[in-house]
Amino acid sequence: MKVLVINAGSSSLKYQLIETDSELVITKGIVEKIGGEAEFSFTNKNGEKVKSKISAKNHTEALKVVIDSLLDKTNNFISSLKEIDAIGHRVVHGGEEFFKSVLIDDKVIKSIEKYSELAPLHNPPNLQGILACKEILPSTKQVAVFDTAFHQTMPESSYMYALPYELYQKYGIRRYGFHGTSHRYVTMKAAEFLGIKIEDFNAISCHLGNGSSIAAIKGGKSVDTSMGFTPLEGVVMGTRSGSIDPAIIFFLMEKENLSPKEINDLLNKKSGLLGLSGISNDLRDIFAKKDEDKRAKIAIEVLVKSIRRYIGAYMVELGRVDAIIFTAGIGENEWHIRENCVMGLEEYGIILDKEKNQNTRAKLSDLSMKGSKTKILLVPTNEELMIALETKWIVG
Amino acid sequence: MKVLVINAGSSSLKYQLIETDSELVITKGIVEKIGGEAEFSFTNKNGEKVKSKISAKNHTEALKVVIDSLLDKTNNFISSLKEIDAIGHRVVHGGEEFFKSVLIDDKVIKSIEKYSELAPLHNPPNLQGILACKEILPSTKQVAVFDTAFHQTMPESSYMYALPYELYQKYGIRRYGFHGTSHRYVTMKAAEFLGIKIEDFNAISCHLGNGSSIAAIKGGKSVDTSMGFTPLEGVVMGTRSGSIDPAIIFFLMEKENLSPKEINDLLNKKSGLLGLSGISNDLRDIFAKKDEDKRAKIAIEVLVKSIRRYIGAYMVELGRVDAIIFTAGIGENEWHIRENCVMGLEEYGIILDKEKNQNTRAKLSDLSMKGSKTKILLVPTNEELMIALETKWIVG
Repeated sequence: MKVLVINAGSSSLKYQLIETDSELVITKGIVEKIGGEAEFSFTNKNGEKVKSKISAKNHTEALKVVIDSLLDKTNNFISSLKEIDAIGHRVVHGGEEFFKSVLIDDKVIKSIEKYSELAPLHNPPNLQGILACKEILPSTKQVAVFDTAFHQTMPESSYMYALPYELYQKYGIRRYGFHGTSHRYVTMKAAEFLGIKIEDFNAISCHLGNGSSIAAIKGGKSVDTSMGFTPLEGVVMGTRSGSIDPAIIFFLMEKENLSPKEINDLLNKKSGLLGLSGISNDLRDIFAKKDEDKRAKIAIEVLVKSIRRYIGAYMVELGRVDAIIFTAGIGENEWHIRENCVMGLEEYGIILDKEKNQNTRAKLSDLSMKGSKTKILLVPTNEELMIALETKWIVG
Repeated sequence: MKVLVINAGSSSLKYQLIETDSELVITKGIVEKIGGEAEFSFTNKNGEKVKSKISAKNHTEALKVVIDSLLDKTNNFISSLKEIDAIGHRVVHGGEEFFKSVLIDDKVIKSIEKYSELAPLHNPPNLQGILACKEILPSTKQVAVFDTAFHQTMPESSYMYALPYELYQKYGIRRYGFHGTSHRYVTMKAAEFLGIKIEDFNAISCHLGNGSSIAAIKGGKSVDTSMGFTPLEGVVMGTRSGSIDPAIIFFLMEKENLSPKEINDLLNKKSGLLGLSGISNDLRDIFAKKDEDKRAKIAIEVLVKSIRRYIGAYMVELGRVDAIIFTAGIGENEWHIRENCVMGLEEYGIILDKEKNQNTRAKLSDLSMKGSKTKILLVPTNEELMIALETKWIVG
């Protein structure tokens, strides 16, 4: 089955055309700077990146360009629109309503609109992607795959904040969690790799990228996660602070005379690795300076400790952990971070094969020593493939 | 040695007169509603509480009443002021300057004043208590015992937030931690009880009261703690939310049109067990309703999970844990909370003696099963005694 996977941002439209049986990507690309003079790039038949300037006033126009490229005879990705069996959309927020992916109909569209209140930067463009597809491919089935859905199995004790209960009832203020598609994918892959039935599989899934979240998986289901009401909470990220003492906000508002929006920006865009190091939000740049720059060293240490705190919290939550999974940009590529996140845990049956860890990147691997009760796994994530698979399962 | 221990609040002055050799309290009492018509109560020679209305416009007048009561012939606590060998003051915030208790001189007073910025509700009245003593007992040595001092051994990786580094430099925004006197006391007692040298002793100290904090103790020293820049962060408390997604604050300010001060009040005074349960900030009231009231049940579960998350985080931080210590109102008296905080951790060598746990309260005890690698201890705290002992050590 050929599934077109769409990830629509406020001024961008990312896509992949995936053959779900072989799990191969036929082509992928992105339209950026939607709104007027836009940029389009995609991978051609020979795997080369082709860039061009296009005009795309909105997501519908951007999608038209994408469709033209798919149909283009030179590459011959598809010869007719009928070959697209279904479209899978990444949708960030599904509130408490969507605990799995769904076929999109008018009711679902209304719900996605409703949850824009909880994800004002993400759900509206996600929805524009859906509406563009409805317009151009009206008879093709569309599926919404929510970032929050995988975490809807969390118990109340994990998702409730100790705030006045009325705020939960009135606004839905609770922990939702994000990166659900990634956590689900690596969980599935890890269980398969270890030959453990998914319903018996306990794991701690560490999705560490520019945005990072950690999830506690019990019997294949999410029972806790580090991101909360928004993606700001949890571990230290590229530019996001992660969890801090909430009272710091009031202190700063007064001392620096900042508005709520300005502090929100400070915590989301100027903090994290960037704020601490003063160098970059990219861990690679910080690593390069860690021996001569004190702040670079601190940034790395604070990042590692914030991850370790969640690993410990979820060890206790799960009681027995079959695997600690590392994935996404940092998790797949930075052996140093992986090593520091799990070192000194021999007492708990967690023993890293240091050499193997140092020599492995971006490849499905068991990095633990023989005899380690908890396996330490590197599992490359693939959110687009997961969206394609979920779409296939829903329409199939 | 007789030490007068003073804990001065904004409109109160609590004291204990302690004989540090026997560790006995000679008398204790409190002046409340300082500012005009005040209330004075103390324990007389027979251990009975004696109450009276007094006039005390300020802390100096309140202290005069206390001193008169100490000298009163009926009780004969002391026969002359010279018998008071030293005065120990609880001071909440010692910033980064004070990593242990100190003899108070003018320089120390200036520093306590300076850190009022970080503890505007606590340091100013603490200072008034000190100044009152200086006035009335000018030749008696005074010692400041800081709530933050014990945690000053935390490494940067524990105390730095992932915020722009300049905010640390400019305002001292970092994790300080509180309840240090209590954490230090129970750590000392626990090591002694287990016959482990303090410098080899690793523990997780759970101070669970109306305010709660948890500390990771490595080699007898604090290396991490749940309270942060202020006492709002960390585990769920009576009326405090503990850690939440910071972005909730901006959402609420907008939706409910609340000022920073109003949200600060909401998080500090209307959240926690009170906000979740809608019943009370007192766990006993919530327990009473947990079988019929859904919110009471959730409040208890969220509290327990928030504690377990820190226990796990600190297990990982310490690598090897000799003891998990429970102390303060909830920790000493609520077997149900203790049981739920450590259950299901057999995999990690933490095994509770359930029956013993159920039958023990407020008494120094080992509650773990034989063979439990990590001991589970109940250690009653005694902050006043700790202040008296620190005072003795400093002036002695």
